[in-house]
Amino acid sequence: MRPEDERPPVVAFSDRVAAAVELKRSQLVVGLDPRIDLLPVELRGEAVGGREAAAAAVERFCKGIIDAVAPYVVAVKPQVAFFEALGSDGWRALESVSRYAAEIGLLVIADAKRGDIGSTARAYAAAFLEPRGAEPPLADALTVNPYLGGDSMDPFLSACRNHGAGLFVLVRTSNAGGRDLQDAVLSDGTPVWRHVAGLVAEWGADLTGERGMSSVGAVVGATVPRVIGDARRTMPQAIILLPGVGAQGATPADVARAFTSGPASALDNASRSVIYAYRDGEDDWRAAAGHEAARLTAETWAASGW
Amino acid sequence: MRPEDERPPVVAFSDRVAAAVELKRSQLVVGLDPRIDLLPVELRGEAVGGREAAAAAVERFCKGIIDAVAPYVVAVKPQVAFFEALGSDGWRALESVSRYAAEIGLLVIADAKRGDIGSTARAYAAAFLEPRGAEPPLADALTVNPYLGGDSMDPFLSACRNHGAGLFVLVRTSNAGGRDLQDAVLSDGTPVWRHVAGLVAEWGADLTGERGMSSVGAVVGATVPRVIGDARRTMPQAIILLPGVGAQGATPADVARAFTSGPASALDNASRSVIYAYRDGEDDWRAAAGHEAARLTAETWAASGW
Repeated sequence: MRPEDERPPVVAFSDRVAAAVELKRSQLVVGLDPRIDLLPVELRGEAVGGREAAAAAVERFCKGIIDAVAPYVVAVKPQVAFFEALGSDGWRALESVSRYAAEIGLLVIADAKRGDIGSTARAYAAAFLEPRGAEPPLADALTVNPYLGGDSMDPFLSACRNHGAGLFVLVRTSNAGGRDLQDAVLSDGTPVWRHVAGLVAEWGADLTGERGMSSVGAVVGATVPRVIGDARRTMPQAIILLPGVGAQGATPADVARAFTSGPASALDNASRSVIYAYRDGEDDWRAAAGHEAARLTAETWAASGW
Repeated sequence: MRPEDERPPVVAFSDRVAAAVELKRSQLVVGLDPRIDLLPVELRGEAVGGREAAAAAVERFCKGIIDAVAPYVVAVKPQVAFFEALGSDGWRALESVSRYAAEIGLLVIADAKRGDIGSTARAYAAAFLEPRGAEPPLADALTVNPYLGGDSMDPFLSACRNHGAGLFVLVRTSNAGGRDLQDAVLSDGTPVWRHVAGLVAEWGADLTGERGMSSVGAVVGATVPRVIGDARRTMPQAIILLPGVGAQGATPADVARAFTSGPASALDNASRSVIYAYRDGEDDWRAAAGHEAARLTAETWAASGW
């Protein structure tokens, strides 16, 4: 880069996470999993009448949740599948919701679990992590699937380097079927998931920010606590995204050991337990989400030991 | 199902493939990988002016290719990443292109490599493989990633059972990085990809059609011929989708051993070598694609030994 270059310097995703964690004293990410059948009744009514109406209801719901949880969370994580289930109308809602979250200062992690080869991976990087003409990227970070190996990661790693993007690579997922492949044991005694963790450490080695963490993070299910400490040791610089807090059963205490690399070295992800909190009480749906986010944030912060 | 039920019986995806293969004497699938920078100059010009214009150009290109190759191929395989790179406008083009292909009688394999857990996998199945209100499914079959294991497959398997959908599970991909995880050797001496092949055989065991093939197929890169025979033996009932023919270097002869379970037991996939064939000659882009599809179809049929 020439010294007179006008482009602002790229701030590493991991440093942006660290700044947000310190500012908000929060390590919480709220997942946006908009299921029509779980929407508050007023929005479920609006969603009748085809996919365009459903997408509009989803958009209103997500924006309401974002407003409610914004003071307490560092990021939102739209689950792309629920938008895609509404086709191009859903994608338009995803774009609008992501823009809205970014405008009010939240990081956006697109949960899309993409993974492909060569020019196709390049296209996914462009879709999610690169500026779109005059518009900013759709998301700050993306979840990706490691099954296709290192060269399938290259375009995403370039987006980290050139645009300050982040990645969360699936390492050990929170579902029962995670065992089928991820827990298979290699000839050297390493389970597949730890082999992948080693690859994650390698892929992210030269993408560390000023705070020492890498922009290449990992997804490790909070429902398998025995794995978390081991994952932390194998990937000391990876930000660990921990789904499974809340609705899937894990508690923040289960996952405290993920935070041993620093206050911004892991993120708790709660989705349904926050966004559908209204179903367990008498609060307005927005208020219920805000209360639950505030509660989980405080609980996580305390449990993280920072 | 009650005897008086009015719903037409579900025809297994594998039987639909077999019927198309016999009718057309073809085992060719043409991939639709619309890259703006490779489009014919007339369309590249139209694509200038933002994503909506680019999506319109992509739609025209794909429909032109579909018209040209329709007599020679059993299916088209839109690569979803290239549409997603154009955001919601791209998704609208994907919907339009898929509908067009279905209307002129081609099977549509959405190459999206999706994979997620629980209700999220459910949403992906709805997005790609299930009727959308009064409209038919976006695609007849979907490529999926096995990293999340058996329960992540369940919603897709249900779509196979209830809607005659098909799956192609990534087993061994054609890229160099496929080695990083897929070739890792398990403690019993099995490479990871063959372990996955075993899972594919299991997942598809009760989804066989009248011709004996399963609706749960597999992706095995045609660039790793030594793997193909082994994959065939491990998954005798899986339709093997073979990317890598053409631009990626494999020849139909390399892959003939995939066809030992029957003429419709494998599908050769060529993408760039067909849709961008015009770049190597003086033909109109549609004519060039048609000629190359016809040539590859005949070559594959001869090499398959049927």
